[in-house]
Amino acid sequence: MQHLQNLLVPGFRAAAVEAAIKKPGRLDLALIVSEYPAAAAGVFTNNKVKAAPILLCQKRLRRGRAQAILVNSGNANACTGEAGLEAAVVTSRTISRLLGLSETLILPASTGVIGQPLPLDRMNSALPSLAAGLRPDGLPEVAQAIMTTDTFPKTSRVQAQINGSVVTIAGIAKGAGMIHPDMATMLVFLLTDAVVAPNTLKAALKQGLVTSFNRITVDGDTSTNDCVLVLANGIAGHSPIEQLQSPGGEILSTSLQTVMADLAAQVVRDGEGAAHVFKVIIEGAASAADAVKGARTVALSPLVKTAVAGNDANWGRIMAALGRAGIRLNPDRVDIFFGPHQVVRQGVATDAANEQAAHRLMADGSFDLRIHLNLGAYTDYYLTCDLTADYVHINADYRS
Amino acid sequence: MQHLQNLLVPGFRAAAVEAAIKKPGRLDLALIVSEYPAAAAGVFTNNKVKAAPILLCQKRLRRGRAQAILVNSGNANACTGEAGLEAAVVTSRTISRLLGLSETLILPASTGVIGQPLPLDRMNSALPSLAAGLRPDGLPEVAQAIMTTDTFPKTSRVQAQINGSVVTIAGIAKGAGMIHPDMATMLVFLLTDAVVAPNTLKAALKQGLVTSFNRITVDGDTSTNDCVLVLANGIAGHSPIEQLQSPGGEILSTSLQTVMADLAAQVVRDGEGAAHVFKVIIEGAASAADAVKGARTVALSPLVKTAVAGNDANWGRIMAALGRAGIRLNPDRVDIFFGPHQVVRQGVATDAANEQAAHRLMADGSFDLRIHLNLGAYTDYYLTCDLTADYVHINADYRS
Repeated sequence: MQHLQNLLVPGFRAAAVEAAIKKPGRLDLALIVSEYPAAAAGVFTNNKVKAAPILLCQKRLRRGRAQAILVNSGNANACTGEAGLEAAVVTSRTISRLLGLSETLILPASTGVIGQPLPLDRMNSALPSLAAGLRPDGLPEVAQAIMTTDTFPKTSRVQAQINGSVVTIAGIAKGAGMIHPDMATMLVFLLTDAVVAPNTLKAALKQGLVTSFNRITVDGDTSTNDCVLVLANGIAGHSPIEQLQSPGGEILSTSLQTVMADLAAQVVRDGEGAAHVFKVIIEGAASAADAVKGARTVALSPLVKTAVAGNDANWGRIMAALGRAGIRLNPDRVDIFFGPHQVVRQGVATDAANEQAAHRLMADGSFDLRIHLNLGAYTDYYLTCDLTADYVHINADYRS
Repeated sequence: MQHLQNLLVPGFRAAAVEAAIKKPGRLDLALIVSEYPAAAAGVFTNNKVKAAPILLCQKRLRRGRAQAILVNSGNANACTGEAGLEAAVVTSRTISRLLGLSETLILPASTGVIGQPLPLDRMNSALPSLAAGLRPDGLPEVAQAIMTTDTFPKTSRVQAQINGSVVTIAGIAKGAGMIHPDMATMLVFLLTDAVVAPNTLKAALKQGLVTSFNRITVDGDTSTNDCVLVLANGIAGHSPIEQLQSPGGEILSTSLQTVMADLAAQVVRDGEGAAHVFKVIIEGAASAADAVKGARTVALSPLVKTAVAGNDANWGRIMAALGRAGIRLNPDRVDIFFGPHQVVRQGVATDAANEQAAHRLMADGSFDLRIHLNLGAYTDYYLTCDLTADYVHINADYRS
């Protein structure tokens, strides 16, 4: 398995254009098309307020097949009522005619401001040039086009040997706010030429989520538009993967997981206003649920996140967050480490030198925060970023 | 019932001094003493990490009597192990000797940085002058001495006729971060000269909490040191209140509630970095639990709070927060109002003029955000403040 610079996946083409949905001069409408109808699966936001494209995708993915993804940024097409659903149908119908594909094989996606009508005229007039621009190396432009407050495009690609063939998996993602499980709270598109049954593809997707997009948080807010879509067009031509528990299934699953974890880490690194990335690791929890809950609570605490912004190894706030996490906890047993530096032993401070060392470590911008509860054998983690004044600036001024 | 400027309560004296626990020049050690042993009750943080003074208070309040509150700021005496507990015992013992009171009638309280040993020498040498300084009009200084990141002292006082006597209730509180129910997430001291049984006093306290300190949030973080203490010294001399469901009991309860709600509102107004105060009101919820959960989720959403900081009536983020609140919700039925301005009707935008009007309303700094779910008859609310860059600055630099 190797990481590659390019995002080429056999049998996929992609393109992006400016449709004036966002401010002029920015790509905001993009298309990914498979040469053949592909096995397809998706996982969607748990938010009860679901954007129109989410509702349409869920419906169209029931048969496990898709051939194209049509995505816009700058407008979420959420809370737009019947008109919003109609807009998602109309744009995918236009694309289906331009490309000669079945309308129901097109998966729509949107991201951006909630509650404003999709600028249908502008989108429709941009669709022909979008379709005409499809090319095998177009995926990096799509990664750019789906950016909202992202400061860099998120891309990843691996290759692996599956059942005797070289199989490619590429993925792109957009962050950077409303990042919290479950679900992924972002747009993620994964493409592969593997030959795999739709149900197995979905199982692999769900398995990969657990250790990637479901273990990251920026702000605890979840979006109306989250989706992770995966298309497998089968061009690699190896013997089909029918079961996840098979040599090929396991390699596919691992490869998919690698791409997703890579993208998830990029999303956190580009969290709105983030100046630090840190991994909150809970060890020695009394149950699996306690481990993940403890990690999530610490990773979400505004007081912990602002302390990290100030390179302050303020472990008292970590203790306070653990104390309200609703987990089994004996404060007198807790050990806390910033990287290798132990700042708390059995619930009380070690010595000031360790805290100073932690402070210097934090200044590097990336570190592990390891918390040992000493109650049991369970461990889990969350990857997150700090809470900075820039987060506030970005979100106070987002629409203005 | 009338609001008064002073904080005098018959039979109580108070004082505050500088003990160099905080930076020089700031009051940080304070004392409140009742002329007689008083009926006393307290409600304490639910955080599993409890500061030493909390543990001691809980023990000492078992018999429902107390005569003094000894409080310091600048140091939480939390996560300080056995030494911390010993420090709380020692300081209250010193005060008991200075005042000739029983040691077990002294309630300790602390607020400030977690995890650092209490500077026992400095406190002990300041205690004699603290005891010597007690005077009937000393309570405003105590309100100052318990401030941490607060920008103004929080005080409130009412008088009422109970069973033929004028009864006074005064209260002081400190905010301003780690503000979230349950519990109150702050220090609150309430004093009255009412004649009331300890159990009835506790019932009145708990009833008042529901509509005051348990309905406010600043940042969702809860503290290791939260406590609300109430002392009733009986000097008013009316016939004793034995039951909450009695004319006197109801007046006491209402008066206590008034003081607590007043203090709670002040805490939110002085929330760390707050530039806006707003009340999130859920109406038409399918259950009481849904109403409070919906209000809490919206009031805590970083994206809603940053939008408010920017005077942005960004109702899409409100919809997104409702959608992840875990409550029964039909997005197509939701109505949203900023003050009188309806920005959402049945899940979609009304017109831009309403949003502009909402924007102007928000610029005034205080408003009601009313959300009608149109699913049932239940209503509840949360009072909260916005999330500003100043919140981050205050908390990133707190210890440095």
